[in-house]
Amino acid sequence: MKIAFVGLGNMGAPMAHALLKTGHSLTVYDQSQRAVQLLVDAGAKAVSSPGAAVRGAEYVVTMLPGAGHVRSVLTGPDGILANVSPGVTIIDSSTIDPASVKEFASLAATQGNPFVDAPVSGGTGGAAAGTLTFMVGAASATFAEVTSVLEAMGKNIVHCGDVGTGQIAKICNNLVLGITMGGVSEAMSLGAALGIDPRILSGILNTSTGRSWSSDTYNPYPGVIQSAPASKGYAGGFRTDLMLKDLGLASESARAVGQPVFMGALAQQLYQTSSANGCGRLDFSAVIKLYRRPEETTAR
Amino acid sequence: MKIAFVGLGNMGAPMAHALLKTGHSLTVYDQSQRAVQLLVDAGAKAVSSPGAAVRGAEYVVTMLPGAGHVRSVLTGPDGILANVSPGVTIIDSSTIDPASVKEFASLAATQGNPFVDAPVSGGTGGAAAGTLTFMVGAASATFAEVTSVLEAMGKNIVHCGDVGTGQIAKICNNLVLGITMGGVSEAMSLGAALGIDPRILSGILNTSTGRSWSSDTYNPYPGVIQSAPASKGYAGGFRTDLMLKDLGLASESARAVGQPVFMGALAQQLYQTSSANGCGRLDFSAVIKLYRRPEETTAR
Amino acid sequence: MKIAFVGLGNMGAPMAHALLKTGHSLTVYDQSQRAVQLLVDAGAKAVSSPGAAVRGAEYVVTMLPGAGHVRSVLTGPDGILANVSPGVTIIDSSTIDPASVKEFASLAATQGNPFVDAPVSGGTGGAAAGTLTFMVGAASATFAEVTSVLEAMGKNIVHCGDVGTGQIAKICNNLVLGITMGGVSEAMSLGAALGIDPRILSGILNTSTGRSWSSDTYNPYPGVIQSAPASKGYAGGFRTDLMLKDLGLASESARAVGQPVFMGALAQQLYQTSSANGCGRLDFSAVIKLYRRPEETTAR
Amino acid sequence: MKIAFVGLGNMGAPMAHALLKTGHSLTVYDQSQRAVQLLVDAGAKAVSSPGAAVRGAEYVVTMLPGAGHVRSVLTGPDGILANVSPGVTIIDSSTIDPASVKEFASLAATQGNPFVDAPVSGGTGGAAAGTLTFMVGAASATFAEVTSVLEAMGKNIVHCGDVGTGQIAKICNNLVLGITMGGVSEAMSLGAALGIDPRILSGILNTSTGRSWSSDTYNPYPGVIQSAPASKGYAGGFRTDLMLKDLGLASESARAVGQPVFMGALAQQLYQTSSANGCGRLDFSAVIKLYRRPEETTAR
Repeated sequence: MKIAFVGLGNMGAPMAHALLKTGHSLTVYDQSQRAVQLLVDAGAKAVSSPGAAVRGAEYVVTMLPGAGHVRSVLTGPDGILANVSPGVTIIDSSTIDPASVKEFASLAATQGNPFVDAPVSGGTGGAAAGTLTFMVGAASATFAEVTSVLEAMGKNIVHCGDVGTGQIAKICNNLVLGITMGGVSEAMSLGAALGIDPRILSGILNTSTGRSWSSDTYNPYPGVIQSAPASKGYAGGFRTDLMLKDLGLASESARAVGQPVFMGALAQQLYQTSSANGCGRLDFSAVIKLYRRPEETTAR
Repeated sequence: MKIAFVGLGNMGAPMAHALLKTGHSLTVYDQSQRAVQLLVDAGAKAVSSPGAAVRGAEYVVTMLPGAGHVRSVLTGPDGILANVSPGVTIIDSSTIDPASVKEFASLAATQGNPFVDAPVSGGTGGAAAGTLTFMVGAASATFAEVTSVLEAMGKNIVHCGDVGTGQIAKICNNLVLGITMGGVSEAMSLGAALGIDPRILSGILNTSTGRSWSSDTYNPYPGVIQSAPASKGYAGGFRTDLMLKDLGLASESARAVGQPVFMGALAQQLYQTSSANGCGRLDFSAVIKLYRRPEETTAR
Repeated sequence: MKIAFVGLGNMGAPMAHALLKTGHSLTVYDQSQRAVQLLVDAGAKAVSSPGAAVRGAEYVVTMLPGAGHVRSVLTGPDGILANVSPGVTIIDSSTIDPASVKEFASLAATQGNPFVDAPVSGGTGGAAAGTLTFMVGAASATFAEVTSVLEAMGKNIVHCGDVGTGQIAKICNNLVLGITMGGVSEAMSLGAALGIDPRILSGILNTSTGRSWSSDTYNPYPGVIQSAPASKGYAGGFRTDLMLKDLGLASESARAVGQPVFMGALAQQLYQTSSANGCGRLDFSAVIKLYRRPEETTAR
Repeated sequence: MKIAFVGLGNMGAPMAHALLKTGHSLTVYDQSQRAVQLLVDAGAKAVSSPGAAVRGAEYVVTMLPGAGHVRSVLTGPDGILANVSPGVTIIDSSTIDPASVKEFASLAATQGNPFVDAPVSGGTGGAAAGTLTFMVGAASATFAEVTSVLEAMGKNIVHCGDVGTGQIAKICNNLVLGITMGGVSEAMSLGAALGIDPRILSGILNTSTGRSWSSDTYNPYPGVIQSAPASKGYAGGFRTDLMLKDLGLASESARAVGQPVFMGALAQQLYQTSSANGCGRLDFSAVIKLYRRPEETTAR
């Protein structure tokens, strides 16, 4: 397939590499020359604008930091919509708000281009290994068509419903993740302060009604799970500032539909505080530092 | 064994029946004559005070609504401590604050009686089926000794550490449970309002980082899990007012050790509102009603 | 003065009338023909675009619902910036985020037009009476220059600092207002539930450290202050949905500068719930209905 | 008058001195010999138990840290109730929960002693100057009778209603105070981070709907009000740990009557965090440190 790929950041670059590896022909665009060069070295063709990238392409994939960037590469000067061939499907893997997705899909539809939202989970590690999960919002026929492209980059390709539902799924998942991690942080810290061994407490939670991924796979208390960021100084993992972005999308989407998100709004402020305290680039489970005493935090 | 059992409420009665069934000899006390009579019919001996119950007993089990009740049967007129034989172990299965447990254990220790906190999870169903989980706080030797008694009433007997840690484990588990259920309620409601099918959203959460018992086993959105209270009008299950009690224990215990519990305090207010709205006797997952629109709530 | 006025809604219309009354010459634009006709009847000249309104104007005043609308009339086809004479000052009285203000001011500056943010407080009543407060962000010289125009529409013209600070002042005032009203609602309801006469409690607060405008001038408990919306079924006043808009601006502005707003985020969710419960068009003090029991709410 | 005074702490000692100064005859009891000696030096008579203090007294005044202490001096061995003459009024100026007040009043009533709750505001400074405010819960006749005693210690003697309402008034005032101070801290910090001069912002709030005692008299931002603790390193004033105690009383009282206190529960966690961060003995307005950036906090 001839694929245009726009956006070669931490996630986009390994995804583009994965497409190359599976034999697709790639034309790439990014503002960073260095990012582009690494793909060229791997066999991609470089061009100087999003519009140039999509001319002649059979599929378009975008992976960008926010809705403003997507809008810009779609509708800006020498942009995608002005240059893409009719009928070509545009797959946006950025994490953005569902309302923008619907707007972009409408714009694309007026000129005959299907638009698919396909945000991912799995992080840079999953992107490099080709094991990402794609949450896909698309009409059924379009979903069937794009599956083969997505399978080159990921392991689980989940159809969430019509266009926009991929973003809804991702936002809601990360909303509950941010809240649950906050709750596990609170309970683990309270338990330790009250005098139970954190490993024993974790064992209780994980075999009982308190069980969650945040506790049994990614426990925020240092030393409970050796492979978790908490046991490695909160390095790596899913950055606090990215969790903060996703909780912002959740609370803004909630506001747009008049839905309260009490726990989500509080969680957002906790991660905001964690970020303000200097943990923005650490794994989001570092939010537990708000709860543990200074002496404990220092001691480990 | 000759066992004294004090407190024959919704939980205590089936636990006492389970002890009888496994062949123990039981002397029981409760303020309710009716509750006592049901046990007598099953073979227990009735007496007129906690003190009378424990005279000659080899073990004492108490199962009461709050710390005040435990204090009263322990230290009140014709109470347990004034009548129990030295060396006899007192097992308290009530859910109360860890500080009270330590105080009671000290009182008992001065007269040579080991005191064990052994709160349960599993609800009235688990009590009737003998499949409760006991979270036990006790010295190792005492734990070994009481295991056989507890095994008559439950399936999992977990040693959490020294006296008091059983309550800590239970409180911390229910703290994280109350928070997580609140978070799942929020995310499921937001997703539905934004337009994703709740069953699909649930599927995404349960195979991703948003996974938790509150989502994959007990989802609060009606129709997602057929066996969950949400699909049966929130009847049965774990009552909102009991969750409220446990979150109150968590926030008071946190205050006593100077530990913040932001998410827990907010969750407590959400269940408080749910209770004030008339849901106090419904399953705690009815908290989702705070998030779903009136028309939806009516429709299902 | 020849003044162009764009945006003749609930607030804009009476402000435009006030300018006419003080002898200014007005050219007006609004999407609503009816709104325009009422101003024409009072002596204004109507035109068919923002651009047409500003041609030949000595001052431009805009009063619009959100930043998107301001962007559109400024930069859209036949917009203000493409048609305004160099040197003419643009006064925007809309309530929008400070970041957008700075962006608009930069755009205007590149073509030699000072841009002033001048959001108001005082509501539609104040607009009709010409007693609005203007919170003005502008360089000192520009502030001195626009004062005479603003004095035709308001009583207090406050210089808050450089461009953008008018919005910051308004957002921060309404942030603290929304929180304080929530707190007074909670305390008045708790006091009543515990058994103190709400009028006596209000008297205590107002002469003590609990004193605030939300308590001594606008108390949310019915019957405490006769002139407050609470004593008139929460009609009139400052609408819940407008408070919700302003708290949204506050939390988004906070996110943009990495500042936590715990109380503000929670207050936002409370007003969101109040709005979802059908109180969106009532005065924001109706948030107290979340705290008062159904029977009480009905009884009064 | 012959007055028995029990509890000579930071507040009790200056209150007892004020009674001596106005010519009353005082018999005092406290566990601290040093506290007792200072009163003896000023003319009081010392005794060795609460019971001994009240024998022959015409009034009893108690000023203690918590409900447990009040219970102990009332009902403990050689306590007040066993020794006080029938008809003598007991005035408790401690800040405790309204439910305990009602219980103590019932106990006292059974033996013919009126019980009055009369918590104070005004701090140690007000106690020393004799300018305290007393919030009094008492039947009308009892209130009339105790006024002369209270006027020796305070300036404003406010009748809040029947017994218990003095505590309700105090708890509700401090609930709204804790919330409002949190809100002002948030808005002042946000304004400063967005770029407005804190003194200008304070001026806007204080002449607008954001006005409150927390802003116009006790602003938490350093340098805004010279006489406020914020401008003196948060020394003196009303300690964070005392605000924490009062918010704890509010949330527990709310729980007892099934009333949600969302903002109060969040405020409690904020002061809890402030205390855990080492600010427990600083003025409660130090809660603003949670919102200001480290560099700012250091800089001032």
